[in-house]
Amino acid sequence: MRDVAIIGIGQTSVDEHWGTGIRHLMLDAGLSALQDANVDTIDAVYVGNMLSGEIAGQSHLGALAVDFMGLEGVEAYKVEAACASGAAALRTGYIAVASGMMDLVLALGVEKMTDTSGRETTAALAAAADAEYEVSQGISFVALNALLMRRYMHEYGWKREDFANFAVTAHANGANNPNAMFQRPITAEAYARAPVIASPIGLLDASPVCDGAAAVILAPVEYARTLSPAPVKILASAVGMAPLAVHDRKDPLALEAAITSSQKAYKQAGLTPQDLDFFELHDAFTIMATLSLEAAGFAERGKGVQMALDGEITLQGRVPIATMGGLKARGHPVGATGIYQIVESVLQLRGLAGPNQIPGARLGMVQNIGGSGATIITHILEAMGS
Amino acid sequence: MRDVAIIGIGQTSVDEHWGTGIRHLMLDAGLSALQDANVDTIDAVYVGNMLSGEIAGQSHLGALAVDFMGLEGVEAYKVEAACASGAAALRTGYIAVASGMMDLVLALGVEKMTDTSGRETTAALAAAADAEYEVSQGISFVALNALLMRRYMHEYGWKREDFANFAVTAHANGANNPNAMFQRPITAEAYARAPVIASPIGLLDASPVCDGAAAVILAPVEYARTLSPAPVKILASAVGMAPLAVHDRKDPLALEAAITSSQKAYKQAGLTPQDLDFFELHDAFTIMATLSLEAAGFAERGKGVQMALDGEITLQGRVPIATMGGLKARGHPVGATGIYQIVESVLQLRGLAGPNQIPGARLGMVQNIGGSGATIITHILEAMGS
Repeated sequence: MRDVAIIGIGQTSVDEHWGTGIRHLMLDAGLSALQDANVDTIDAVYVGNMLSGEIAGQSHLGALAVDFMGLEGVEAYKVEAACASGAAALRTGYIAVASGMMDLVLALGVEKMTDTSGRETTAALAAAADAEYEVSQGISFVALNALLMRRYMHEYGWKREDFANFAVTAHANGANNPNAMFQRPITAEAYARAPVIASPIGLLDASPVCDGAAAVILAPVEYARTLSPAPVKILASAVGMAPLAVHDRKDPLALEAAITSSQKAYKQAGLTPQDLDFFELHDAFTIMATLSLEAAGFAERGKGVQMALDGEITLQGRVPIATMGGLKARGHPVGATGIYQIVESVLQLRGLAGPNQIPGARLGMVQNIGGSGATIITHILEAMGS
Repeated sequence: MRDVAIIGIGQTSVDEHWGTGIRHLMLDAGLSALQDANVDTIDAVYVGNMLSGEIAGQSHLGALAVDFMGLEGVEAYKVEAACASGAAALRTGYIAVASGMMDLVLALGVEKMTDTSGRETTAALAAAADAEYEVSQGISFVALNALLMRRYMHEYGWKREDFANFAVTAHANGANNPNAMFQRPITAEAYARAPVIASPIGLLDASPVCDGAAAVILAPVEYARTLSPAPVKILASAVGMAPLAVHDRKDPLALEAAITSSQKAYKQAGLTPQDLDFFELHDAFTIMATLSLEAAGFAERGKGVQMALDGEITLQGRVPIATMGGLKARGHPVGATGIYQIVESVLQLRGLAGPNQIPGARLGMVQNIGGSGATIITHILEAMGS
């Protein structure tokens, strides 16, 4: 197997793109990535997406992507693992390049969630959970996360307000990201005052419904330097799985799939959590950020919230997270999120993250979660230098 | 890259499975395949499916599959390319095993289309076409195929009745397949009398709406013989693509993606059409069977129908197709179809196709079509003998 590098990135802004269809979002992100990589042909396109069939009545996104991008004859299909679809598409591309079957792969994440009623979007998102044993009880996806947050607060004695810094940090970072949906800071007071969506989850605990597309170009490490001035090597690509329904998990607060996925990734890369310069985690809700920090080995059980309280998750902290705004402030166009996380990490590793640059960032970990924790995919990236 | 073999197969019957959910269909087919391969662990599961989000409100099928099958911790996600989802899942597994990253992969196709109104199913299937430029005009997926059939009849002077033998042959073969949806022969007279669905397509030109799941286990050829008494080698795996919308294709009757896909497959395998013992083509509609025979090099342009009229497509003919009933009689649970085609081909190559056995079958080609021809995936299989 060959080592694989990222040689190009592209993204649209994350927003309510009322005037832009799925195909245009894919085109914008995809062509930016091809241009950034300075290539005009590609061997395969893998599209990470969750909801286009349900919301836009458009399946078959692989064919649409290559057709509309003018990539005539290039093989393409969609990869879906709920909100981890982006990382699953990346992993599919990673395996194809590692195998030697493909030299250049475009992994593209896209989601357009706003072309329907909020009620329909909520129903479509619930399909990430267990339709027959969770959703049929009337629970929504936010409500599942609310149960986890409630249990966590009960178990470890935290108050809702203690989670504020996850949202505050994400918004502070999003303020400097021109592609973020929310480019304004918020205060802990605003967090505390936010309306409750599904108690104890308030509006500012939750990532927004939005549209966007992001893309990366993969190539073998051996050619990467001839194609890109600053390639980024994929040191690890690892998947962890847990039962689909929360009630089937031995310990719902352990985020078992993140533990497995992180451990596999550390082993592949020969690294420990202490070696990483940042951790792009999946902060769809503040409780998910907390559990991710614990599962990935940055905090003890029940202590993830303490890291936020102590400011350890800011750009200057011990473990910077959501460095360009995270799911909370950059936005969470579900099937695209996993690729946005990668694109932003590449910016950090190229030293091009602007005001949010982590000085000397060389190693970053990225984790994308599907459902309430059933599919968790981790990648570790390393700057190859120019 | 390593050569890849199929060492196990499983399938449920194709039917209106009112009492069986998606998870049970996956379980039945998946466990049968594991049992057939005589393995109890697996490295990855790729699920080919098109409509579970739309029809069952259940996305995230990869996680559901491994959870319900008891394959704890095994990585899994869904692969979608409209009606070619099954072959796309197989190809994903093929690349993973060829790369050396996985040793044992389960490629599973599943579809449950009957748990909703026919109107909703028709709308969901239309998502395989171009939502904004075809479906928004009011056209259904059957109607798109009807336009192709009408044009073909006009261009080459065929009558609707000339297509009868595609349906007659499929039903004759389905009559001996205990897993087929329709296990009864039909006559050319019944075909001619069938009600029109979208002129010139009648009920007996079209494959049925149905439920089913099928599965195969992949392993490196080097180990295959130690695991299976009769492994089948994948000699070729090739994808062809064409514009998503019929009106964007240079020549809608050429099935361009099937030409590319077949040519690539012949080249990979070092074979010509004459070398093949059978051709499991994608007879979702009789016109698709016709165009597939032409595109794959078995008939000249405009002459595919002649092969049916001459009986060349029967089990005793020059190019047996739909050997276990095809999409028409076995049924077309869309995302599962590509895997059913493979399972049935493996039966032929193992000499276990019962009354439908093609004597001495050693080489078979399988072709799965997404949309009206935008994604076409071809595999060539070879018996490795016992």
